[in-house]
Amino acid sequence: MRVSKLFTKTLKNSPADEVAKNAQLLIRAGYVYKEMAGVYAYLPLGLRVVEKIKQVVREEMNAIDSNELTMTGLQRKEVWEKTGRWDDKTVDVWFKTALQDGTVLGLGWSHEEPIVEMMKHYVSSYKDLPVSLYQFQTKMRNELRAKSGIMRGREFVMKDMYSFHSTKEDLDDYYNRSIEAYKRAYARLGLGDDTYVTFASGGAFTKFSHEFQTICDAGEDVIYLHREKNIAVNEEVIDDAVKELDISRDELEKVKTAEVGNIFNFGSQKTDEMGLYYTDSEGRRQSLYVGSYGIGITRVMGVIAEKMSDSKGLIWPDNIAPYKVYLVSIGENGSKKADEIYKRLTEEGIEVLYDDREERPGAKFADSELLGIPYRLTISDRSVENGQCEFTARKSGETLLIALDDVFTTLEKS
Amino acid sequence: MRVSKLFTKTLKNSPADEVAKNAQLLIRAGYVYKEMAGVYAYLPLGLRVVEKIKQVVREEMNAIDSNELTMTGLQRKEVWEKTGRWDDKTVDVWFKTALQDGTVLGLGWSHEEPIVEMMKHYVSSYKDLPVSLYQFQTKMRNELRAKSGIMRGREFVMKDMYSFHSTKEDLDDYYNRSIEAYKRAYARLGLGDDTYVTFASGGAFTKFSHEFQTICDAGEDVIYLHREKNIAVNEEVIDDAVKELDISRDELEKVKTAEVGNIFNFGSQKTDEMGLYYTDSEGRRQSLYVGSYGIGITRVMGVIAEKMSDSKGLIWPDNIAPYKVYLVSIGENGSKKADEIYKRLTEEGIEVLYDDREERPGAKFADSELLGIPYRLTISDRSVENGQCEFTARKSGETLLIALDDVFTTLEKS
Repeated sequence: MRVSKLFTKTLKNSPADEVAKNAQLLIRAGYVYKEMAGVYAYLPLGLRVVEKIKQVVREEMNAIDSNELTMTGLQRKEVWEKTGRWDDKTVDVWFKTALQDGTVLGLGWSHEEPIVEMMKHYVSSYKDLPVSLYQFQTKMRNELRAKSGIMRGREFVMKDMYSFHSTKEDLDDYYNRSIEAYKRAYARLGLGDDTYVTFASGGAFTKFSHEFQTICDAGEDVIYLHREKNIAVNEEVIDDAVKELDISRDELEKVKTAEVGNIFNFGSQKTDEMGLYYTDSEGRRQSLYVGSYGIGITRVMGVIAEKMSDSKGLIWPDNIAPYKVYLVSIGENGSKKADEIYKRLTEEGIEVLYDDREERPGAKFADSELLGIPYRLTISDRSVENGQCEFTARKSGETLLIALDDVFTTLEKS
Repeated sequence: MRVSKLFTKTLKNSPADEVAKNAQLLIRAGYVYKEMAGVYAYLPLGLRVVEKIKQVVREEMNAIDSNELTMTGLQRKEVWEKTGRWDDKTVDVWFKTALQDGTVLGLGWSHEEPIVEMMKHYVSSYKDLPVSLYQFQTKMRNELRAKSGIMRGREFVMKDMYSFHSTKEDLDDYYNRSIEAYKRAYARLGLGDDTYVTFASGGAFTKFSHEFQTICDAGEDVIYLHREKNIAVNEEVIDDAVKELDISRDELEKVKTAEVGNIFNFGSQKTDEMGLYYTDSEGRRQSLYVGSYGIGITRVMGVIAEKMSDSKGLIWPDNIAPYKVYLVSIGENGSKKADEIYKRLTEEGIEVLYDDREERPGAKFADSELLGIPYRLTISDRSVENGQCEFTARKSGETLLIALDDVFTTLEKS
């Protein structure tokens, strides 16, 4: 992609009412556009990052035999009344709307009840189990406050997965496989080292559920961390957890975190309430065991923007950067050579953003840094004379002079 | 994918209130699930078709230098008030909702006004033009009636594109390039022969806009067709068009059609109303010229389901079928061989749905036909003995016996 063809521009300032660092950076770099508080459009560069995060998560969900589908945003009142969660007093983030005939509809803030309702059409026998489903869905949540940029949206992208099992053991087994799949996903997203599986408050069925919490100053949560034993506990269950896990409170470190995922063992409660059962091999009606597993896709993007950035701008991990290389041309001969290199990088399938504008080198460098593309190649008249170009890593800021002939091998190794 | 792992099942019946053939077939085959009238979830097979249609359209939009982004579903009242289109009397398909503080929001039934509003941040100079943007967006439209299955949804996927130009000539040029891109897209989607560019009612700026209408008995539109001259006219402008195009009404054939796309020349009206201008090379403020270009992605899927189906079920064109091959195993040795073939087809990147269930051959064949997968391979104990398998084309229904060794070359040629 040529920067000259990109309609977004880097901006000196973000909107005055934008207080979150992630959104300030993403707006300035042209990744997102703020429609209103908590509601952001994803511009071409931002959409590429979202799609890359989705693809990592998709691969890990497929690897544990889950099936991708897309549920609907518009939801029926009757379905949610079965579990008592239609009421705005019980669920305080509903957006509601109405058909022309006055029928009130909900906008999907979650899809647990609609998925269970739908599965009545597809699960009836033990032969239909286990089954796991997931989607990437635009959720709508009527948050009272939305001051955390894309880390807490009123409209945001979530991966939600649901699994259905005939026995508690089978659910437990899948639940544990999901924990491992989540760990692999966060590792690939560059958050592995700072992300902890935490003990969180459970439901009727289990004492604890699990959350994935990433250390992040801008996070809204607090966890207690036992680094040595690799134990992490959410604040709300700290008293119970200390007892249960036989650890002392003094050993725990209090850190600010952002919840990037959660997994929840529903047991049979929701399916029983909603009337979804299966028939076992002897023809008896049985309860199902259900798990629910979420990852906030756009929140993860926000957390990465918060954590992987400096005073100059964003610093994307290689796996989810919108482009791997930012190619800067300087001068006439530099531009001719850069055209060649751009063509060849594109042909080789290396994702490159080519700053072909007639701009000061300093402005190009500043944009490259603000955008956070992992590697910059600078080709100037002088470097062409010397048969060299500059290779700069965004993360370290280090610049090497490399031979023009070595561009491809250097990038392949990076 | 193994059929045994697919959670959907083919159903004998579709919901009693489902009157549209496209939805009846898609529900029975497990492609979609009806949440409510005009609101459908896309199950794994259906989602694959949607994504393939999107990919064809994406490639054609990228080929005319458009940039993909994603706008928001939640929309601001103020933005639509600028053109008078917030009022339910002017636009009768709004779904509206409200923030907790009472602020009323709209749910995106179109994105014309929000896109123009956003572009105030990115277009100011003639140097920023032309620019073209598109998205695949879930639109919400509060249709009074929704009886056409996925051909007229209250929630549906649309590709909408917008282009901004500094001169009328530049817009005209891009408008014509878009017509050609649309034609290529419909051809690749298998609808080329039956899809016509029609004269439709224009706006303040042009006498006519253009629609893409596909001949379809279940369509809600009527066009008048001059097959010889390749002229097609929408009913609402027939009187004007006959005069303008110098054709006689007697020469025209009246056919039922479904609108699968539309393109519209806004001229400067909307940008002027909303206050988006650019500065020309001499520093003068100038009006922009804007075009708007839509393709109903899920509607296209519905039209294809209507047109390409028979009493046995769906008949997907190769390009958008969820899988290319339906592999049927019969008997013990047949299954062993089919396992091998499945493995090899998967390794070769050929998309195959493997019916590995312990089911009667007749049931597997019936499912294969209902699902509409283009090619069926049947491997039975007997065929293994003979070193052969059955190769059946869904469209023609013809079956050939081919050598097991020739499976790959046969599929590659198909």
